[in-house]
Amino acid sequence: MRENIVITAKDNPAVKHYKRLRDQKKARRTEGLFVAEGLRIALDALSRTGCVHQLLVTESAWEKHGDVLQNAMQETGRILLLSDAIGAQLADTEHTQGIFAVCACPARPALEKILSQNGRYLVLCQLQDPGNMGMILRTADALGVDAVLSAGSCEVFSPKVVRATMGSVLRVPVYEMPDAMTLLNLLKAASIRSYAAVPAHDAVPLPECTLGAGSAVWIGNEGNGLPEDIIRSCEVAMTIPMQGGPESLNAAMAAGICMWEMMK
Amino acid sequence: MRENIVITAKDNPAVKHYKRLRDQKKARRTEGLFVAEGLRIALDALSRTGCVHQLLVTESAWEKHGDVLQNAMQETGRILLLSDAIGAQLADTEHTQGIFAVCACPARPALEKILSQNGRYLVLCQLQDPGNMGMILRTADALGVDAVLSAGSCEVFSPKVVRATMGSVLRVPVYEMPDAMTLLNLLKAASIRSYAAVPAHDAVPLPECTLGAGSAVWIGNEGNGLPEDIIRSCEVAMTIPMQGGPESLNAAMAAGICMWEMMK
Repeated sequence: MRENIVITAKDNPAVKHYKRLRDQKKARRTEGLFVAEGLRIALDALSRTGCVHQLLVTESAWEKHGDVLQNAMQETGRILLLSDAIGAQLADTEHTQGIFAVCACPARPALEKILSQNGRYLVLCQLQDPGNMGMILRTADALGVDAVLSAGSCEVFSPKVVRATMGSVLRVPVYEMPDAMTLLNLLKAASIRSYAAVPAHDAVPLPECTLGAGSAVWIGNEGNGLPEDIIRSCEVAMTIPMQGGPESLNAAMAAGICMWEMMK
Repeated sequence: MRENIVITAKDNPAVKHYKRLRDQKKARRTEGLFVAEGLRIALDALSRTGCVHQLLVTESAWEKHGDVLQNAMQETGRILLLSDAIGAQLADTEHTQGIFAVCACPARPALEKILSQNGRYLVLCQLQDPGNMGMILRTADALGVDAVLSAGSCEVFSPKVVRATMGSVLRVPVYEMPDAMTLLNLLKAASIRSYAAVPAHDAVPLPECTLGAGSAVWIGNEGNGLPEDIIRSCEVAMTIPMQGGPESLNAAMAAGICMWEMMK
């Protein structure tokens, strides 16, 4: 399955392709591919049919993890061996494991179909921090949220977010759209109730909201929260009651607590 | 109140003192002081009597924020002006606001007294990530947890944690101890029930636990969870039910959801 040639040239096409996908949002969008670094997420990706387009592994990593990687290959995919020096160039982390997967962005059912299932959804509106995005996707995956809908937020398939999700990016259905109001109207058309999470004392306390089937919780930007027109257009303005202290919770934490209430 | 001299020398004693407190855990421990960078936390600290020992402000920052800082000074503390170049040396963030406070670690009632109040507590056991620690303290502050007890975890007053708490480090009663079992025995002696949060299917689901007055939720290390002997010695092994997906939640998220259930 793997070739016996070790890539040592930085202008090797596979190496250049990986770097392009790592660095350029446009390349990811155009090709529908993204990069994932590390043993754990590579194994996760390999377990999913059609997910891994190419696996690049350094010689050192192959010595350590070759067997388990080989076993995880479900298809006749190609594994390319890299010199450790080239691996260091691909690495996005300080202590790289030397395992780099080029993955296909998972195919999703049409959004209209997902919404017609009267599920429980999380909407991220202008969320900007990749660490928050990653933590939210991991939590959504763990708690079983039906889909995460993202409008004007940081890119889901950027290397930072992919890493922070710990593999959940492969599992949670995520939909990215440019415009929040368009999304809100799609939700309304599907008779999904939208709950705007706001740090306002006069909003409905979270425990009094019945976040059952057909609910969407909206979480806003880290610094500015949700846009005013979105809050006004949501069916309910909802708040997590706080005991003084800070003005608001961290966006990921607020999302997690709302998802917990919605899913439990 | 402020001197008209602008510090331009990096071996100025106040500059050296700040750097020592920023960089050395031992200095923070010995002196009971820590550093906080940025306008918001400086204003938070200035609003608390006896908290700010010294405020160092760059010339640029003084032009922008001098009035509000001056107004917030409740006591005859000293403000020292720095050249912007010296400010850049003190900065721990990429885009510094040029405001640096030397603060006193808040005085706390004796732990025994806090525990005798039959409150709701969070215990962090070998938590290592400063970002998680910061997010947890911010959430504990927002939700009104009576105290956070930390055993063998990363230092609460390190610059990274202080920044991530967004000021909550000044408000939440935090107790740091070296040994988890000693802490667990203190809780038992005070008739506080300890709930070990574990990602195990056979543990009691969180919604079935009555985390009322006299409860302590234990959260473990990011990679390894709680030590076995601690889990065995806690009154209840408790779990946040998950729908497959990842093996566990992020430690801060798990702490947040447990605190929410305990406090609501």
